Amino acid sequence: MNELILTTYDWVPGMPRGYVRDLRVRWALEEAGLPYRVESTPFRDRQPAHFAHQPFGQVPWLTDGDLSIFESGAILLHLGERSEALMPADPVGRSEVKQWLFAALASVEAASQPWSFFKFAGDSEGSSMWKFFDGFLDARLKSMETMLAGQDWLVGNFSVADILMADVLRLVDRFEGLAEYPACRAYVARATVRPAFVKSHADQMAHFAAAD
Amino acid sequence: MNELILTTYDWVPGMPRGYVRDLRVRWALEEAGLPYRVESTPFRDRQPAHFAHQPFGQVPWLTDGDLSIFESGAILLHLGERSEALMPADPVGRSEVKQWLFAALASVEAASQPWSFFKFAGDSEGSSMWKFFDGFLDARLKSMETMLAGQDWLVGNFSVADILMADVLRLVDRFEGLAEYPACRAYVARATVRPAFVKSHADQMAHFAAAD
Repeated sequence: MNELILTTYDWVPGMPRGYVRDLRVRWALEEAGLPYRVESTPFRDRQPAHFAHQPFGQVPWLTDGDLSIFESGAILLHLGERSEALMPADPVGRSEVKQWLFAALASVEAASQPWSFFKFAGDSEGSSMWKFFDGFLDARLKSMETMLAGQDWLVGNFSVADILMADVLRLVDRFEGLAEYPACRAYVARATVRPAFVKSHADQMAHFAAAD
Repeated sequence: MNELILTTYDWVPGMPRGYVRDLRVRWALEEAGLPYRVESTPFRDRQPAHFAHQPFGQVPWLTDGDLSIFESGAILLHLGERSEALMPADPVGRSEVKQWLFAALASVEAASQPWSFFKFAGDSEGSSMWKFFDGFLDARLKSMETMLAGQDWLVGNFSVADILMADVLRLVDRFEGLAEYPACRAYVARATVRPAFVKSHADQMAHFAAAD
C-alpha cells in the first residue's frame, strides 16, 4: 500500500482554525484507520509547486502513489473507495453515498457558504441580497431537517457523506444558523463526538499552533 | 442493460430555459450514445413522490434499474463509470476526471452561482458584498484561464468533467462574466458546438416549450 500524504497550509489566522478543509480528510483517514503523514505548504507565499497540485492555490490535497488529488469531496470519494468503514459495499448504498457527497457540496454548502460570507463580513442585516441568501439556506436546512429527523446518518451507517455534510453544517452552527433546526444540530453533535473527529480537530489546531 | 430514465420539470419560466440541469445529463447521455427516456415532474405543485427522489425538490434525477440518483454531479459520475466516452480507463485519468467534477461544483460554481444570483437580481453595483463575490469569482476564473490557455479539455480527451465545467462557465458567459477570460470563453465555445450539446439544448427547449 502506498503512503498517504495529506498537504495543508503551514499556518492560518485564528478565524479559520478548526475549519480548514484538511480536517475532512484527517477525519476520514482516522475513521478508516489508514496511516498517513501531514505535510505543509506556505499559506503566505504560495509557490508554483503548490499550484501544480491545487490550481486554485487552496488546500488540502492528498497524494496516494502516483495520484495527487485536490478537492475535499474528491479525496473523500477516493478514500471511500479504499475503505468499507467509509462507504458500504452494496451498489445502492455506494451510489447513495456518492450522491450525498455531491449534495453536501452542491446543494447545502452552495447555500451555506455565501451565507457564511455575509456572516463573516458582519453584513447579515437588512439588505435584499442577505435576505435572498438567508432564504436560500433556510430552504435547504428545512429539507435536511426532515431527512435527519428520521435517521442518524445519511445512508445506513456512518460514511464519508456524513463527514462532508456534518462539516458543512458545523460552520452554519458556528454562526447559530441551526437554532431552528434541532435535528440538524443533533446530527452535527452526533458526528463531532466521534473520536476520529475529536482527534482530527485537535490535530489541526495543534498543526497551526505549532507555526505561531 | 437497464432503461435509463431522466426526470426533469414539466415546465419552467423563460429565464432558466436552456440552463436547467437536466441539460448536463442529456449532454452526457448523448455523448455516450446511451438510450434514455425523459419523464416530467410538476414544477408548480411538487408532490411527495418528487421529494422521495430529490429531497430538495429540485431536478434532475436519473433512474438506472434499482438506482435513483439526484445531483447532476453524481449522475455524471455514474454515467462516466458506464462509458469510456465520458471518462478514461486509466486510473490517473479517472481520478483527475472525478477531481474536476468536484472542482467544477465546489471551486467554480461555488463562486459563480452567488455571483449569478446578484446578476439575476440586478444588484451587481456598488455594495461591498457584490464586490466580495465578484472578486471571489474573478480569482477562480484567473486560475481556470491559466489552465485552459494550455489545453482543450480538463483531462486529456473530452469527459464528463468538461460537461460540468463548461455548463458552469456558460452561465457566467451569459452575464458577460468571461469578457476578460478569452481561454475560458473559447473553452465554452468549443464545448457548446459539440453535436451532443446542440441536441441536448434543443431537446430541453422543446421539452419546456411543449408545456406552454
